Parts: sequence; C-alpha cells; structure tokens
Amino acid sequence: MTANRQILLAETPKGKLGPEHFRMQEGAMPSPKDGEVLLKVRLISLDAANRAWMQGATYREAVGAGSVMAGGAIAEVIESKDAKFAKGDLVFADTGWQEYAALPGRKLLKVPNIKPMTNLLSVYGVAGLTAYFGLLDVGRPKEGETVVVSAAAGSVGSLVGQIAKIKGCRVVGIAGGKEKCDWLKSELGFDEAVDYKSGPVFKALKAACPDGIDVYFDNVGGDIFEACLSQMKLHGRIACCGAVSAYDGAAPASGPRGVPGLIVVKRLRVQGFIVMDYYDQAMKAVAELQGWVASGKLKVQEDVLEGIENTPKALIGLLNGENRGKRMVRVS
Amino acid sequence: MTANRQILLAETPKGKLGPEHFRMQEGAMPSPKDGEVLLKVRLISLDAANRAWMQGATYREAVGAGSVMAGGAIAEVIESKDAKFAKGDLVFADTGWQEYAALPGRKLLKVPNIKPMTNLLSVYGVAGLTAYFGLLDVGRPKEGETVVVSAAAGSVGSLVGQIAKIKGCRVVGIAGGKEKCDWLKSELGFDEAVDYKSGPVFKALKAACPDGIDVYFDNVGGDIFEACLSQMKLHGRIACCGAVSAYDGAAPASGPRGVPGLIVVKRLRVQGFIVMDYYDQAMKAVAELQGWVASGKLKVQEDVLEGIENTPKALIGLLNGENRGKRMVRVS
Repeated sequence: MTANRQILLAETPKGKLGPEHFRMQEGAMPSPKDGEVLLKVRLISLDAANRAWMQGATYREAVGAGSVMAGGAIAEVIESKDAKFAKGDLVFADTGWQEYAALPGRKLLKVPNIKPMTNLLSVYGVAGLTAYFGLLDVGRPKEGETVVVSAAAGSVGSLVGQIAKIKGCRVVGIAGGKEKCDWLKSELGFDEAVDYKSGPVFKALKAACPDGIDVYFDNVGGDIFEACLSQMKLHGRIACCGAVSAYDGAAPASGPRGVPGLIVVKRLRVQGFIVMDYYDQAMKAVAELQGWVASGKLKVQEDVLEGIENTPKALIGLLNGENRGKRMVRVS
Repeated sequence: MTANRQILLAETPKGKLGPEHFRMQEGAMPSPKDGEVLLKVRLISLDAANRAWMQGATYREAVGAGSVMAGGAIAEVIESKDAKFAKGDLVFADTGWQEYAALPGRKLLKVPNIKPMTNLLSVYGVAGLTAYFGLLDVGRPKEGETVVVSAAAGSVGSLVGQIAKIKGCRVVGIAGGKEKCDWLKSELGFDEAVDYKSGPVFKALKAACPDGIDVYFDNVGGDIFEACLSQMKLHGRIACCGAVSAYDGAAPASGPRGVPGLIVVKRLRVQGFIVMDYYDQAMKAVAELQGWVASGKLKVQEDVLEGIENTPKALIGLLNGENRGKRMVRVS
C-alpha cells in the first residue's frame, strides 16, 4: 500500500489566502466500508468557492483548521463496496485535496468517460453547468439583448459569454488586464471587454453598453456589482453566481448602493443560484454543450497544473485572477 | 368660473421634507382641448413615492421646483372632449395637487363607481393592487410559509399581511411603535409584530421568525432590508416594493451588507415591481379583493384628511409614519 498524500487547511485565514495556510501530510491509505467506494483522485477542481468554505458555513459546512482541504474532483473507482459502482468508473465527488478517498456511494456522481478527461471539470462539469443554467435559466437573455459577465476570463465567465453569443446577444466581458481583455475579443468572440484594472469600471462599462445592460451575470460582487446595477435596463436580470470580491479577505462593511431602490425603479430580478439545484437536468445541458463544442461554436478553455503539491498555489493564483478558463490540478 | 387652488413644490428638498418646501397658489381654471377631459379632483392619494419624485427621475420624470406637485387622485369628469369619457365618470389620474385638471383621455384610467369612493384609492386602488400583485405574483408565498412585511401598518403593508393570512401563511409585521404593533395583531390578525423603534430589528425579528423568513415584502429598504436579508431561508423571495428609508433625506452612502453573497448562498430571488406593470390584470384582482372584503376576511384601513390645504402636512406625516392604512386627502 502506498501512502495517501493530503493537503490540510493548517489555519483559517483571516485575510488574504497564502501558502502558509496549508500543509501537506502523508495520511494512511483509506479503506472502504460497506456501501463505500475507494477513489483514486485524478483531477482536482479549483474554484473561488473553495475560499468561501474556509470562512464559515455557506451551502456546505465550513472547512476547519486541521482538516483535509475540501474540494471537488474527478476520481476513478479502484475498489467498490457499493453495487452501483464498478472498478474503472469515473465519478465527480468532494474527495478533498488528497490522492485517495473512501466515500459512500450516495455521495458520488457518476460521469461519462468523455475524453479529454479535463472536459469533465470544465465545459461538462460544474463550470459548464453553472454557465449554462445560470445564464439560460436565471438570466434568460433574449436575442439582441446586451449581456455583461464579470470574471469573464474565468472558467464560468468564458463559457457564459460564448453561450450568450450563441444565443444572439451582444456580449461585454469584465476582466483584469489588457491581455485578458484582448483575448476575450480575439479568441472568444466577445463584442467588448472592460479592463477593471485600467480605471473606473462604471465609465468604461457605460461606453461599452451605451443603451444599458439587460442581463448581468455576476461572479464577483462588490464594486463591479454596484457599477452594473446602476446601468441595468428596465426589467433587467442579474444572475448572482458568486461573490469572489468578498471571499478572500474580510467581509465587506457594506453592500452595493442602489439596493433595493434601483431594483424597484427598474423592476429588476436579482437571483442567486447554485448549480447543484440543477443536477437533475444536467444530461440535457451536457448534450447541448457537446453539440456546440463539436460544431466549434464553443471553445473550451482549460488551465491545468501538474501535481497535488501545487494545489494551494493553484487556488491562491486563481483568487488573484491569474487563470484563463477552468483551472485544475492533475493528481494522477 | 372658480379659481383652481394648486399646491406647488416651492423648492426641491435636500433632506427631510417640510412645509417650507410647498406653497399654495390660485391658478386659472384649466380648459380642455380636443381629446382632453376636464376633471374635478375628489380624493388625492398620498404615497411615499411622492417624495421620491422630487429627488430625480424614477419611473416618472422628476417634479421640478415651481411645478404643481404631482400625485395620483380619484377625479370626476365634469366636461369631456374625448368620446370615451362622459360627465360624471370617475377616473384615476395623475392630476397633481390641485382642484381641477385638464388631461388627455389616454392618460386617464376609468374606475367603477364603487362606494365608499375612498376604497378606490385604498383596497381597490394602487395600494390594494400593489399588495395583491407584489405578494402573490412576486413573493409567491405558499401555505404555511413565513411572510414578513415592513411598513406593515401602512396602506400596502396592512393589506399584504392580511392577504398572506388569507393564503394560510404565518405573518410578521414590522412597524414603528408599540401601539401600531398591538393594532396589527389585535385588529388585523398578524401573528407577530416587531417594533423597529424599540430596539434592534435583527434580534426581535429572530425571535418572531425562529425558522427564518420565506417571503419578505420590502417597503422600506435600508437597515430593515439588511436585517431581513440575513434571516431569509433557502429559496426565499424578497418583493421590493419601495425604499422609503432612502426617499426622505440624502441617498444612503452604501447598501445592505450581504448583497450579493447571501443571495447566492441562499438562492434568493430579489425582485422589484411596479403596480403599473399589472394594470392589464387589475379587474381580476379587484374582483378577488371584493370577495375578501365582502366576506370580512380583509379589513380596509383608511386615513382620510379633509381639505387640499392639508396635503403637504399629510405627506410629511406619512413619511414620518403617522398614518395607519391608506392616507388620502378629500378635496371635494
């Protein structure tokens, strides 16, 4: 038996996340009980939500100091004591940041053996389903409408913008840095991109959306949320997907101005969602996404780091906005 | 011909509204042109929105200093140059605060001759329709759910709470002062009432809603919005009807904490609405409201002042929360 390398949350961060908040240890190889499955972790997903889980209860329990860091992964079944799973099956599961995990079968989501396997975490994984359902079911853009997405170069944002283009919308992305912004336009077909690092977002957004915003897909919260809120059109919709700006640091002392006044005056719908609520419709979405990928309408952007020891660095970098597309770590 | 007494907005208020912001004048009797109707104003509606209109463009143009103060009213047709209206018809219209107005027929909404006429501004008017559609179409409470309404003793809030009770909900009202709170429970059948003047709303609300809030009908914004937001249950809904706290004074420097973070985590729907968007369904609502009034399930609360000269005082008092139920001024 080999050892099971694990990355622990060594300390709950008070402010900005750094490498000092993690440590690696060699744990024992887990052994599956009845109803459990032994998993070999293949690809660990990095998500801004990882950071939120350290801070307190969200839609899952907080990750306490001294625990294996929580995180979703694609894993392979290597031994099964649950009749619904066989050796060689691929699953999506919250294995945590480790090489092996033993989990009850009911906590596993079987996934098809799609190649490349990385697509199971990007376009056909949480990122793709989040973009798909958040934009189409919550945002509900109509052809010709203006759609704005923040963290536009990220795993979800890069798909949201492209799906909105497929639906005939005018698409404006908000991202950090000129290079990312150029890339959104030249590579992903966005109509405009606003660089939040080069000056006030409000003004640049106004120039990019002279008639206002119909749908804003929010990945960041904070000042960018406020700038978009104030430029929404009548009956606009804001799909609230995440609030990265509030994850990595102290909780903000106040919220965006214009809530609820502008929501009333403009008759806005501001709606939060979590992709888990849509898992029962996932196959429908995957089928449609596969069609778009096959026809070349949807470009899959992935950012893969190698080696479990690089997982903390991968998350810290993601929170600093260094990735393009879906970030993950290949463990085995 | 008699003169037409009018109340003007003398000066745009910078902060709290006072009698010094108004003045009365005797204007000329208006004369209807082709397509217009001459109206005699009977009952002027007082609404928190009156105050918002002074501050800038909302869903209508701002009221400028020196203009007749804008406001909705029930008025009687006394001369018609529009074939769709006859002498004696009753209409709802933005006549402004004056005794007579000449308006194009297309700007008038004919209303049935219901008695007492005051009901046309309360339960069968904007207040009733706002409560009806805001609660049932935006809030969508289910039987057994907990509904919280702010400004609960006001024209809209007093109806929202009663309609929620009719729908089988547990109802908690937020109002200012012990007397109002007692009245909500003893007279209107609310299950609990929270007095925002007697201490922190958060704590009292927690005691009144130990399992959290399913639907919050917001009439006030500000701190009370924030306190409710933080106690919403998963998949809760906030119907944003108004933001009185932001009307009478400087615009707030910041918004409620928890936006958009809590909206995501709890998958909330926060939705603004304006009753005008529902006018095409008004008759259906009036019919259902009449049934509830006739059966005694819905008690109509009205607060009628006499004489056009008292309209400024009536609005100032409304913004200070002195009314119970629908406030209006009888002009003639």
